[in-house]
Amino acid sequence: MSEIKKVVLAYSGGLDTSIIAKWLQDEYQCEVVTFTADIGQGEEVEPARAKAQAMGIKEIFIEDLREEFARDFVFPMFRANAIYEGEYLLGTSIARPLIAKRLVEIAKDVQADAISHGATGKGNDQVRFELGAYALMPDVQVIAPWREWDLNSREKLMAYAEQHNIAIENKKGKKSPYSMDANLLHISYEGGVLEDPWAEPEESMWRWSVAPENAPSEPTYIELTYEKGDIVALNGQAMSPATIMAELNKIGGANGIGRDDLVENRFVGMKSRGCYETPAGTIMLKAHRAIESITLDREAAHLKDELMPRYAKLVYNGFWFSPEREMLQAAIDHSQKVVNGVVRLKLYKGNVIVVGRKSESDSLFDESIATFEDDKGAYNQKDAEGFIKLNALRLRIAARKRQAK
Amino acid sequence: MSEIKKVVLAYSGGLDTSIIAKWLQDEYQCEVVTFTADIGQGEEVEPARAKAQAMGIKEIFIEDLREEFARDFVFPMFRANAIYEGEYLLGTSIARPLIAKRLVEIAKDVQADAISHGATGKGNDQVRFELGAYALMPDVQVIAPWREWDLNSREKLMAYAEQHNIAIENKKGKKSPYSMDANLLHISYEGGVLEDPWAEPEESMWRWSVAPENAPSEPTYIELTYEKGDIVALNGQAMSPATIMAELNKIGGANGIGRDDLVENRFVGMKSRGCYETPAGTIMLKAHRAIESITLDREAAHLKDELMPRYAKLVYNGFWFSPEREMLQAAIDHSQKVVNGVVRLKLYKGNVIVVGRKSESDSLFDESIATFEDDKGAYNQKDAEGFIKLNALRLRIAARKRQAK
Amino acid sequence: MSEIKKVVLAYSGGLDTSIIAKWLQDEYQCEVVTFTADIGQGEEVEPARAKAQAMGIKEIFIEDLREEFARDFVFPMFRANAIYEGEYLLGTSIARPLIAKRLVEIAKDVQADAISHGATGKGNDQVRFELGAYALMPDVQVIAPWREWDLNSREKLMAYAEQHNIAIENKKGKKSPYSMDANLLHISYEGGVLEDPWAEPEESMWRWSVAPENAPSEPTYIELTYEKGDIVALNGQAMSPATIMAELNKIGGANGIGRDDLVENRFVGMKSRGCYETPAGTIMLKAHRAIESITLDREAAHLKDELMPRYAKLVYNGFWFSPEREMLQAAIDHSQKVVNGVVRLKLYKGNVIVVGRKSESDSLFDESIATFEDDKGAYNQKDAEGFIKLNALRLRIAARKRQAK
Amino acid sequence: MSEIKKVVLAYSGGLDTSIIAKWLQDEYQCEVVTFTADIGQGEEVEPARAKAQAMGIKEIFIEDLREEFARDFVFPMFRANAIYEGEYLLGTSIARPLIAKRLVEIAKDVQADAISHGATGKGNDQVRFELGAYALMPDVQVIAPWREWDLNSREKLMAYAEQHNIAIENKKGKKSPYSMDANLLHISYEGGVLEDPWAEPEESMWRWSVAPENAPSEPTYIELTYEKGDIVALNGQAMSPATIMAELNKIGGANGIGRDDLVENRFVGMKSRGCYETPAGTIMLKAHRAIESITLDREAAHLKDELMPRYAKLVYNGFWFSPEREMLQAAIDHSQKVVNGVVRLKLYKGNVIVVGRKSESDSLFDESIATFEDDKGAYNQKDAEGFIKLNALRLRIAARKRQAK
Repeated sequence: MSEIKKVVLAYSGGLDTSIIAKWLQDEYQCEVVTFTADIGQGEEVEPARAKAQAMGIKEIFIEDLREEFARDFVFPMFRANAIYEGEYLLGTSIARPLIAKRLVEIAKDVQADAISHGATGKGNDQVRFELGAYALMPDVQVIAPWREWDLNSREKLMAYAEQHNIAIENKKGKKSPYSMDANLLHISYEGGVLEDPWAEPEESMWRWSVAPENAPSEPTYIELTYEKGDIVALNGQAMSPATIMAELNKIGGANGIGRDDLVENRFVGMKSRGCYETPAGTIMLKAHRAIESITLDREAAHLKDELMPRYAKLVYNGFWFSPEREMLQAAIDHSQKVVNGVVRLKLYKGNVIVVGRKSESDSLFDESIATFEDDKGAYNQKDAEGFIKLNALRLRIAARKRQAK
Repeated sequence: MSEIKKVVLAYSGGLDTSIIAKWLQDEYQCEVVTFTADIGQGEEVEPARAKAQAMGIKEIFIEDLREEFARDFVFPMFRANAIYEGEYLLGTSIARPLIAKRLVEIAKDVQADAISHGATGKGNDQVRFELGAYALMPDVQVIAPWREWDLNSREKLMAYAEQHNIAIENKKGKKSPYSMDANLLHISYEGGVLEDPWAEPEESMWRWSVAPENAPSEPTYIELTYEKGDIVALNGQAMSPATIMAELNKIGGANGIGRDDLVENRFVGMKSRGCYETPAGTIMLKAHRAIESITLDREAAHLKDELMPRYAKLVYNGFWFSPEREMLQAAIDHSQKVVNGVVRLKLYKGNVIVVGRKSESDSLFDESIATFEDDKGAYNQKDAEGFIKLNALRLRIAARKRQAK
Repeated sequence: MSEIKKVVLAYSGGLDTSIIAKWLQDEYQCEVVTFTADIGQGEEVEPARAKAQAMGIKEIFIEDLREEFARDFVFPMFRANAIYEGEYLLGTSIARPLIAKRLVEIAKDVQADAISHGATGKGNDQVRFELGAYALMPDVQVIAPWREWDLNSREKLMAYAEQHNIAIENKKGKKSPYSMDANLLHISYEGGVLEDPWAEPEESMWRWSVAPENAPSEPTYIELTYEKGDIVALNGQAMSPATIMAELNKIGGANGIGRDDLVENRFVGMKSRGCYETPAGTIMLKAHRAIESITLDREAAHLKDELMPRYAKLVYNGFWFSPEREMLQAAIDHSQKVVNGVVRLKLYKGNVIVVGRKSESDSLFDESIATFEDDKGAYNQKDAEGFIKLNALRLRIAARKRQAK
Repeated sequence: MSEIKKVVLAYSGGLDTSIIAKWLQDEYQCEVVTFTADIGQGEEVEPARAKAQAMGIKEIFIEDLREEFARDFVFPMFRANAIYEGEYLLGTSIARPLIAKRLVEIAKDVQADAISHGATGKGNDQVRFELGAYALMPDVQVIAPWREWDLNSREKLMAYAEQHNIAIENKKGKKSPYSMDANLLHISYEGGVLEDPWAEPEESMWRWSVAPENAPSEPTYIELTYEKGDIVALNGQAMSPATIMAELNKIGGANGIGRDDLVENRFVGMKSRGCYETPAGTIMLKAHRAIESITLDREAAHLKDELMPRYAKLVYNGFWFSPEREMLQAAIDHSQKVVNGVVRLKLYKGNVIVVGRKSESDSLFDESIATFEDDKGAYNQKDAEGFIKLNALRLRIAARKRQAK
């Protein structure tokens, strides 16, 4: 690894990445550039500026990426109905490639030779950051302090912070025992009591949603309008992707929607327990399937269903910027041209219930054929006999052979 | 088609199949044998005997197939986590092969040359019955009256019934406007207002579950014990498969669990709206995924996820008795040897929430590795660098080539 | 089915479709329009005009579709490396959608209400013609005489021809005992002694290629230039798609290349024996894989390999004009942007041997990394340890659990 | 890594692994146990004993594993019709897990705490050895000298050998410029001029087969008898798996069969050029597909085809001892119960031509249905109409919707 002169750090403004900023300056004797993004985590990003300045950082990038995140990452992924391992809506996974993309773009701009991040050596995020970065800037150097340093306990970190005059904010109230991550799509919790998969997390852990028990006793009805597989309006009102997600998070969270508690398989080879709140995402997945149910051809839908687990795995593992994810996306996007219409949902104490779907332009639901009543010849029931007979032919030939044995 | 002498009819005891029994006698001048099965539909089957006798049927088969249904059909399917089109738990689909199997077994026993059923020419059930029958008795003849006769309206049917002295029961209260089908796994609703996919069904349609709104305001906690992927005990008490399902239907229904409202793609080529109540199934799917989450290898789980849509489609389309379904089952069953342990669930107003999973014998969740705390060397974070570097290699080589253009 | 006034017939000019033309006029009392296409079958199409006129046909369409066939059907299919059941290069399958497309386009032009073809009721071609037609003109009526009439033996056909003054050409020499079909991609043989899958066909059956035994004893070397996955030049000389195929058929056939003898599974449910000569196709498949081997990303290539059997099945079954084939094509075509370069092949007595592949612009083969010699740090062998360790982690955890039992 | 006391080395008897044996003794100050296996590489293994003794090795294992290799590794893989990237028959890949298995079994027997092998840090073999070992003995330590030492050139190795009195055999004749690996399934060549993928290897490289040009001008016909997907007899004579392979290598090689020249994608992320001779395997793959073509159900065959690339990738990447490979094997093996019969092949100058296949007990080829002649009602052509109509229904509904736009 050649000498590092300048490194762009994904900087949250929090204690850990502040320590990293200092450590990079000391350890590598290099200039540090910070990059802080608002991707809907729900915290102010501007305070990161003063903190960075206090550490002598000269080049400070602070950006609002919420629309890009929603439009170019979250929405395409929801066209795929992506769920990892039947449960996880990929909230953390989908944010990493965007951060990686901006890190290397900035690195090119400021002529840095390295990037750095605060992800640990046990998790998926290091993989997602670094695969994204390498795919876009193949000769970038990556510094992952958690894999290098010996500050491997809270105590050592605190000592380092104190020794280097890094402000340790004492947030009001108790410090969360959980490791958390948030963006427009979700907030996640790991660690603490969750390390025992038999233990139920206490109610106080959850931050974005009320418990179903505490949600309103009256349901909320909403309508979502789709164009080419993407939501373009809520209750008839056109909104940008990020606004839609923010609104759905609010409405969903208020109705106790989007909590998930699961054990997942990390790309690095271990199982880990995570809890997630994904109010908008939970609504979006259900609604997207509903609008597809009346507009998408059967075999297109089934092909999507068979490709989905692979797509989700690619996103989870950090292969967003890969030819294979792009190939799948091309197939999926091709199918979405006809996914236009409106879905009506009932939200009630944790439940997302589809109560209606319609599409003037693209509905393939043909009442005149499907009806239990007289269809006036729209469908010839006699066709079914030949259909069944030929579908059965191979099974009958094989059965005769077995009988003959 | 050669002359029919004796036909075995799948006989529910209801008006439609009673008319079919009469019509077969008249039209084919053949002997009719009735077969009525209890597969957990929740209605008495014994009354079918007197009705059949009243029509002059001499050979009457009435059987309780609930355990066989749960053990040999529903449970193997749930090992696959099967869902059709992201929503449908295959409640009707999975019952048909069993009926087909018994129909042809009886046909062989009584030396009948044909079987008959009451499924229409527009639906999936005709396909499922007939594919099942042909696969097991390749030269059986199948009579599907709905594809043959001209009794294609309620009025004509009623006239036929009256004319032939077939008792039309006037069930107390209003007749349901829906076409329904029930067994241990679910009850389904089609037709009526559901033919408009934008219309929300009225609350009175649902029969097996209370509305989430009317479910208890206190959650119910249950524990399910798994052996080789199958539930063997509820709250620590060993039970047979059918008993478990009956119990979970009761508990789930009381907590507003298992309603689904969807538009599905039929094998015969049309879209159709259906509503389903699947209380036990909804709980079983969630719980099975949870026990797999700590006991199943990652790649085994992912392979199952990728094969699942195909498995579900095979069941939906009626290919239960096919070499390809059996091949998939062999792979799935192989994976389930280690799926042993206990899942704890919280049921609350429509929500099935996993709150704990454990497996003394087979948990692959290794706290010492996954921990956020010091792992004492169980996992070497430095390994991650090489892992990422080699996973990135192909992406980097390609990126360099693009840069050089 | 409503009354037919005008029907467009896929007319080869041969005896069978001449009989059909007459039969349609008689049976349906309708006007018949003929459509005859040159898709490279190697016979003159112009003579069909006089024959049609002799039967009183007024609207006669004769078209040269060779370039459209090669460019829009064969070439896209070869981007997918499509092979059905590990052996069959889909020569017949890929021609049918084009014929169907032109049939319905002409039907619209001449305001016909029906189309007709000469495919039998046992084969795949009826399915391919009709699925194609329905997908493009959903309310077209299809007349498939072989499924309707009672001319089900050679004798009856001959009698009918004689009775209606249809000229029976006595081609010079012996009549082939095989049913044959030819186009730019292949010639096929079915029937005759081939109906016994244990019987080896006599050498005289084959028409497009010499036997390997009779091919030159000196190899032929050729170079094929690829752009975006398609061949654009042969031995450095730019050529149109159809010209390339014609040339490769000539060169391949002369070197004994492209014969195949197999038993395949038809969509209608039976197995059938077929023999095929596909000289150009056999060369193109091998060469395309070779150019992909140095230009395509590993995971893109593997995804293509996993999707290929499904793509081939769709083409075989006649679903060319379907959303699912188009989705797969979108994914495949996306991957081909980088498939540029040259492949060098040695053709010798039935063998197609790749002896070189290169791509100035897009080769991902990096000698400096792959070398067995000192790579000067291009690849860090130490990375492999971490790569292996983390790939092994889940296997080790599971093995420890098994040991503990 | 804890202290190593005893290590089992995969020892070929050649220079490289002799140097490793010495280096391990010196570097780790540990006892070295050698393991040398005959897996059909075509060289004597017994001479390894004296060489090991000369270096002071006390525990020396020399084993003939040919039958186990053929029966438990090669044959199961050929049931899957496995080919990697459309070309490679996995000759090296399939041998590694067996060596890994014996290494750890011996390690357990002799109470060694580590294993060692001579694979480099750039290739797939290190991965295959180590994944296999970790899966069977999770806490084994692995020493991969090529990733550790600084003997990274031929010169340094020679110097080390000389310095430590390791005999450098001067094989008669010219030393091969290629890196080679051989076993019962194949011999492989890498390096040298092959590092340029545009260069054709000289004829003298190939060792197991004659050039097609030099093969006999008379074809050789053989018959292979299959039971449950495995070859059990050659030309009617029952033989053990390893014997069959040895015979087919001889016959195939004499007829110029089984050469392949390709660029493949390694698991570690780079492309590499390899040439292979796989005479028996090339014949076995073609023959297995042929016997399946008449005995295997269509959908079982298609499912196998879709799973095959994944299976091949697992074997290539070294995941033989993994739950997912075992799941796929369970599905594949389930399908092979009916794969019984005889295949007749013509071998001629590089060509493997199937000329007949038959199966008394399990042929699904039904001449009475498939015939072009009158089938006497075995198949009702009218069924095809309904079959096509319902297969087309979804396409027609969608086309109508598009028309209405």
